[in-house]
Amino acid sequence: MEKQYVPAEEIEKRVHTLRSEVAKREWDAVLIVQNVDLFYFSGTMQNALLFVPLDGEETLMVKKYRERVQRESAIARVIPLNSWNDMPALIVEHYGRTPQKMGIELDVIPAKDYIRLQEIFAGVEIVDSSSLIKAIRKIKSTYEIGLMKQAGEIGKIVFEEVPRVLKEGMTEIELAGILVAVSMRHGNQNYLRMRAFNAYAYSWHVLSGYTGGVLSYIDAPMGGMGLSPAFPVGASHKPIKAHEPILIDFGICYNGYQIDETRMFSMGELPKRFKDAYRATREIEAAMTAAARPGVSCHDIYRMGWEVARRLGYEEHFMGPPDYKTRFIGHGIGLEIDEYPFIAQNHDYPLEEGMTFALEPKMVFPEEGAVGIENTFVTSEEGVEQLTPAEETLIEV
Amino acid sequence: MEKQYVPAEEIEKRVHTLRSEVAKREWDAVLIVQNVDLFYFSGTMQNALLFVPLDGEETLMVKKYRERVQRESAIARVIPLNSWNDMPALIVEHYGRTPQKMGIELDVIPAKDYIRLQEIFAGVEIVDSSSLIKAIRKIKSTYEIGLMKQAGEIGKIVFEEVPRVLKEGMTEIELAGILVAVSMRHGNQNYLRMRAFNAYAYSWHVLSGYTGGVLSYIDAPMGGMGLSPAFPVGASHKPIKAHEPILIDFGICYNGYQIDETRMFSMGELPKRFKDAYRATREIEAAMTAAARPGVSCHDIYRMGWEVARRLGYEEHFMGPPDYKTRFIGHGIGLEIDEYPFIAQNHDYPLEEGMTFALEPKMVFPEEGAVGIENTFVTSEEGVEQLTPAEETLIEV
Repeated sequence: MEKQYVPAEEIEKRVHTLRSEVAKREWDAVLIVQNVDLFYFSGTMQNALLFVPLDGEETLMVKKYRERVQRESAIARVIPLNSWNDMPALIVEHYGRTPQKMGIELDVIPAKDYIRLQEIFAGVEIVDSSSLIKAIRKIKSTYEIGLMKQAGEIGKIVFEEVPRVLKEGMTEIELAGILVAVSMRHGNQNYLRMRAFNAYAYSWHVLSGYTGGVLSYIDAPMGGMGLSPAFPVGASHKPIKAHEPILIDFGICYNGYQIDETRMFSMGELPKRFKDAYRATREIEAAMTAAARPGVSCHDIYRMGWEVARRLGYEEHFMGPPDYKTRFIGHGIGLEIDEYPFIAQNHDYPLEEGMTFALEPKMVFPEEGAVGIENTFVTSEEGVEQLTPAEETLIEV
Repeated sequence: MEKQYVPAEEIEKRVHTLRSEVAKREWDAVLIVQNVDLFYFSGTMQNALLFVPLDGEETLMVKKYRERVQRESAIARVIPLNSWNDMPALIVEHYGRTPQKMGIELDVIPAKDYIRLQEIFAGVEIVDSSSLIKAIRKIKSTYEIGLMKQAGEIGKIVFEEVPRVLKEGMTEIELAGILVAVSMRHGNQNYLRMRAFNAYAYSWHVLSGYTGGVLSYIDAPMGGMGLSPAFPVGASHKPIKAHEPILIDFGICYNGYQIDETRMFSMGELPKRFKDAYRATREIEAAMTAAARPGVSCHDIYRMGWEVARRLGYEEHFMGPPDYKTRFIGHGIGLEIDEYPFIAQNHDYPLEEGMTFALEPKMVFPEEGAVGIENTFVTSEEGVEQLTPAEETLIEV
């Protein structure tokens, strides 16, 4: 387990960056409340809050359970917290004063807790720290990229299993379950994390034939049937048939870090129109990755994907059926699967070295099926490096 | 799929109950924003909000995607919503006026969205509807109990698989993965839902030997090692050995409805102290269920569990190590796994017919292991009925 702990120098760097961003905004402090942000800035996901003042040492206030926090976190100052009500007193005791202006992640903290913190910190101006935190987290360190590469290696093992287990008549969810089992044995935590409210991520986006053309609430080219209206996305009870496109979009999370990846399979030969469309998505991806490098705007990469899709004659099918196109072709990924950068319309900021994102050019043929490729990339000094090494050829079993 | 849709009479009853509770409080309306509450009151989990006025027909306002909403939901009035900003105008258009006092689930809506809704509904008093909604949802209908029974049947299949696949040296997470695969094949959605902020539920709480004594952030007698500090609960990479207690706490979610269940296994004979302790947990459960019936206070059932544990000499081990006892022995369960009622200290309200809850008397031996039983029950007219039929005997493979 020891090696799984986030190295002290990572935590120091992250907290240092946080503090300089707080200084730029003339705030006095941030209070980290969400578990993923807490993990990022402290290395632990136990029940705790992290107080980072502009001046003075950062403090982990732990509700449960301190021994484990001290083992997992490189933060030196770890104190017990019986109740949120005690926070102002604990802060005054150590720092001499409460902050004037304090950031909290208002994009994720529930309203009820926000109202309670406003009462507890009466007189403190509470501001939204979420965009600041997302901006810091979007640039990955070598350490973080290394974990994403390990996630990519697990993905390779998962996709290699498909031709061994795929059988006519097996349901999408049965295949999905087998792949989940393989992934877990190799360290996938089987729980993807998403920041958006009401959103939930899952690995098992296994769609075959017509389910690839079924839409759902998610901003994705295809939603799938899912198991029921209570989980209306991803793999369903539909049996998989021969000559259908089988699209497997499978996310892996290793030590908290995620990759997202899609590969195509079929039993027997896949009809030519699907093969051609799949080849087109690979061509679109190749054009986008050839253009992607630090300084290039995400919007421009997005536009380039669309240009190639149009040139190849896939305007109707690209990124969803005509009235339901997604607003993006790629999304940032790391501890959460909806991070910056978005390769999307109106995302007019440049790629930077260390940004990680998944590109997923996909084609939808309503009532027939979907095809597409997805890989996760890190922006390097000169271009992008692929973190998902699974074989990309269509596998006809 | 058709049969999976929530029947119209269920939706009508639920909305009717909601409206009468709104009337009692002298509010004008509720706006349902969270996906699980939306599913409960409308039958769909697509991207939509449900407006329920005191006078007038309820309206589903759909961001994406209306065709599927109309198929899944028994709510008759379904209108498109381009932006949250349009809601007041849409409401005035149909109902003639905006509400004076409107409930929103402040326990789950993010602060940022709450602040935005306050701006959008300027002049409307926004109140917290969460306790009202939780109170309605805690009483299950025959239809809901039927789905939980089907979840229980899947649990039985999962636990029956354990002796077939358990092998010395296999890791906790490998065993967990195999069971997840079996459960998914039979319809488990492999995604448990929890309402609390920063909390996440998972099926694969597979603990063997010393990991059963490892604590984590969760309010549970044992947390387990988990795969890393980024998922510090449940199954780990530890190989399972002979003569260790193997505790498998596995949740199942079928059509949105969950059950929670724990069974005990070992490879070779389990040492007598663990066997005795397991027998004690079954005795505690039997005493609690014999007492449980409508009108009996949850606190009294909780106290009875503790009395039996003390009488049998397990005060030190029951519900966690000495300084880290959980505050509950049972929790309500349904669409979320942290529903009412809690069989806990200070939960001094009576059981009512239709309440469903999991009881989980467990014993922890730090650094050695954990044992325990867990079943899900529904409160019937005369007592409780068990929804989780898997064999309860310790299985020595």
